[in-house]
Amino acid sequence: MVEHGVRQTRITLVMDTIRQRIASRALGPGAKLPSVRSLASSMKLSPATVVEAYDRLAAEGVIFSRPGSGFYVANQALPFTVAEVGPRTDRAVDPFWVSRQSLEAGEDDLKPGCGWLPQSWLPNDSLRRALRKLARAREGTLGDYGSPLGLPPLRQLLSRRMAEKGIEASPDQIMLTESGTQSIDLLCRFLLEPGDTVMVDDPCYFNFHALLRAHRAKIVGVPYTPAGPDVEAFAHILREHWPRLYITNSGIHNPTGAVLSPVIAHKVLKLADQFDLTIVEDDIFADFEHMSAPRLAAFDGFDRVIHIGSFSKTLSASARCGFIIAKPDWIEGLTDLKIATSFGGGRLAAELVFNVMSDGGYRKHLEATRVRLSKAMREVSSKLKNLGVTPWLEPQAGMFLWCQLPEDMDAADIARSALKRKVILAPGNVFSLSQSATGFMRFNVSQMLDARVWDVLEETLKERFAPSVSRPHATAG
Amino acid sequence: MVEHGVRQTRITLVMDTIRQRIASRALGPGAKLPSVRSLASSMKLSPATVVEAYDRLAAEGVIFSRPGSGFYVANQALPFTVAEVGPRTDRAVDPFWVSRQSLEAGEDDLKPGCGWLPQSWLPNDSLRRALRKLARAREGTLGDYGSPLGLPPLRQLLSRRMAEKGIEASPDQIMLTESGTQSIDLLCRFLLEPGDTVMVDDPCYFNFHALLRAHRAKIVGVPYTPAGPDVEAFAHILREHWPRLYITNSGIHNPTGAVLSPVIAHKVLKLADQFDLTIVEDDIFADFEHMSAPRLAAFDGFDRVIHIGSFSKTLSASARCGFIIAKPDWIEGLTDLKIATSFGGGRLAAELVFNVMSDGGYRKHLEATRVRLSKAMREVSSKLKNLGVTPWLEPQAGMFLWCQLPEDMDAADIARSALKRKVILAPGNVFSLSQSATGFMRFNVSQMLDARVWDVLEETLKERFAPSVSRPHATAG
Repeated sequence: MVEHGVRQTRITLVMDTIRQRIASRALGPGAKLPSVRSLASSMKLSPATVVEAYDRLAAEGVIFSRPGSGFYVANQALPFTVAEVGPRTDRAVDPFWVSRQSLEAGEDDLKPGCGWLPQSWLPNDSLRRALRKLARAREGTLGDYGSPLGLPPLRQLLSRRMAEKGIEASPDQIMLTESGTQSIDLLCRFLLEPGDTVMVDDPCYFNFHALLRAHRAKIVGVPYTPAGPDVEAFAHILREHWPRLYITNSGIHNPTGAVLSPVIAHKVLKLADQFDLTIVEDDIFADFEHMSAPRLAAFDGFDRVIHIGSFSKTLSASARCGFIIAKPDWIEGLTDLKIATSFGGGRLAAELVFNVMSDGGYRKHLEATRVRLSKAMREVSSKLKNLGVTPWLEPQAGMFLWCQLPEDMDAADIARSALKRKVILAPGNVFSLSQSATGFMRFNVSQMLDARVWDVLEETLKERFAPSVSRPHATAG
Repeated sequence: MVEHGVRQTRITLVMDTIRQRIASRALGPGAKLPSVRSLASSMKLSPATVVEAYDRLAAEGVIFSRPGSGFYVANQALPFTVAEVGPRTDRAVDPFWVSRQSLEAGEDDLKPGCGWLPQSWLPNDSLRRALRKLARAREGTLGDYGSPLGLPPLRQLLSRRMAEKGIEASPDQIMLTESGTQSIDLLCRFLLEPGDTVMVDDPCYFNFHALLRAHRAKIVGVPYTPAGPDVEAFAHILREHWPRLYITNSGIHNPTGAVLSPVIAHKVLKLADQFDLTIVEDDIFADFEHMSAPRLAAFDGFDRVIHIGSFSKTLSASARCGFIIAKPDWIEGLTDLKIATSFGGGRLAAELVFNVMSDGGYRKHLEATRVRLSKAMREVSSKLKNLGVTPWLEPQAGMFLWCQLPEDMDAADIARSALKRKVILAPGNVFSLSQSATGFMRFNVSQMLDARVWDVLEETLKERFAPSVSRPHATAG
């Protein structure tokens, strides 16, 4: 009886393990299950136990077998998915929708949904000067691997710029990476075990969802208010889910354009201390600020905050360069991980960024960009209001305007319709883990100066407005 | 009794799980264990069970607790390490030893242990021309993200070059990446579940070990012969371990300089079919070949072979650019994964590489480099033999010479001693999972033209030779 009971428990354990991997999206529909042999060995169970568990899951329709090939997750396994893990796979609200459409866009496509400035807004003259300077550089610059931490003068320059924001970081606490995204990716590898829980803002930058899913993390969303995360909900999530990590933007929040208030920053850090939470502060929009908002890294001094940034938004997304600032012993481990996964960094990109940043024209370029963005923000906001599209708040800076569409409209429908007219929009739910932003849209004000954007927007709003007002209301009423 | 038996089984299961993570290096010495709460939740067990398991492991000295912080892997937990998983952590034979020393090397350091050409051997004039051309490029090139698959003309050029090697790959089967290392990293993410087994050659490129450890893979080494992997051992490993992946170099093998024979290529592919094995063919040294060796991708046509490459060795390691060639549906999944983990690729680097490769001087540069390498290979080989250092084989091409040191010498000792004299060597065991290459050393012939390398080599060989012959033999005899 004991033997039998133990065997049953073991079979159930295997079944639960597989169910959980499916629920957490570690195994998606169609994915191949671990072989009987490997799962048996990793769980220290007999192959017979695993075979029995797989057979039962197959009988339940959760998985199916392909003779001679193994077991696969059935498409109908999805009902096991918990609502809180990963956005729905509907392509219009998939986290890859906006990124792939924007990155694959043709010359004629307009991109008010994308997350970067038009090419003509970038410091093209400084970039050209920097490239010509690189063409005269010594051989090592042209052909050699970067050092593990990355170009020393660029790290020194970053250290000084951080000090201007009240963030104290020595150059050897700064590691250069290929991008802001790669920074977060390295940190997830360094800090997470598969199955760990990570908290993000709801709404947040859609690629956080995609990245965390690649890390097999469980994702929990904290509602975002105009002054930062909802502190009550934040505390509740810490108690309920014990997340390992919280990833956020404290400067200009993506997609809302909100700014973290000092009061909330302080409360968040106190809670982080209490629950042993590490915070990744993604600050890639910092250079657009008129006035420096409070930074968690400035309050915390890199005890439990990690600060990341990049140059993709203000300088060039073509030369890939980002950075991580963290406590020295973490930087040591991150360096090994960076070598293991990408060997030396991009020395040429770092040299280019350094050349542009030390070019006298760069600060002027930044100032001009801020003014230009403010002007665009005012104009776009007012034009949107005329269309019945209401900003959630009027951002102090940056390129994003997070807006509510006229009642009953589904932003994904609008986005699909606009895409047919070669306009790429960013529908709300790609940013929302809870899928509660159906009626929201993120607009990039710098990409809305072409009249065709407004024509298409007006057309699609009209088109979608008509049926959705008449039909559901008629049926409901 | 049943309840009690089940509880015991569960506690043992947790203990074994942790022991196995330590053995597989998923948890290294000093690493923090998953929190009680998260492990309990992911294993679907009660926190009390996990607490009991942790307490017992702590009593055994495998882990220790830091009050208020959690449990950590003890340094003395290492006896649990299975010999076949991961090289020993002794810094001299650590997979990071060579990479960090080489990447952190100062101007005066000599690097016969590194894996790249001296700067003066690279096509610096072509690189300068390409940078000047970039300085005149359109704005999109300077500042925009790359498209998800990467620069179309470069992928077309690669497709044509592959055809010259008998490898048929359409441009849309080619995805650009940041480097060869990032290519393998993306593939591991795409194909592996934590705990999957991966086969590598023994010896192999040391960073494969580091990378696979970062992926929590179990690593198994197959002995490498002058004509490819030992087929008997290969078949045995497939039967015993069912590896998911085999990572190898078929052109010029690192570190041995060996070339895969057609007979072994065929046998390896037949076995791969039989055991559902995927093969990653890392071909970053392809451009050094005089005559094209057989490629697994050419035989297999991307059914179960994935081909990767980069431009770091022949063009520039400073501009990061590599590629993956695989079947179309894998490329689709890899593209999403690339966006999630690094967003757009480095467009500027791809443009630079394309400019250099379409520069008339590049083919001539490659031809000259091959001749130069052959000459250096002959000279270095003969000089090493004079020192009693014997090449394992005389490579047909490339920069690597894999050599046996005079009897009884420990390459790690020699490397440590040479490092004090600012010469970075690559001791055999960093390449060997079984740690069976104690008496071997990999030399990069292109980095051995400075007389100081030979002075230091001669000195250290003499220095280490004396005690190691006299002491152990005296005690033993």
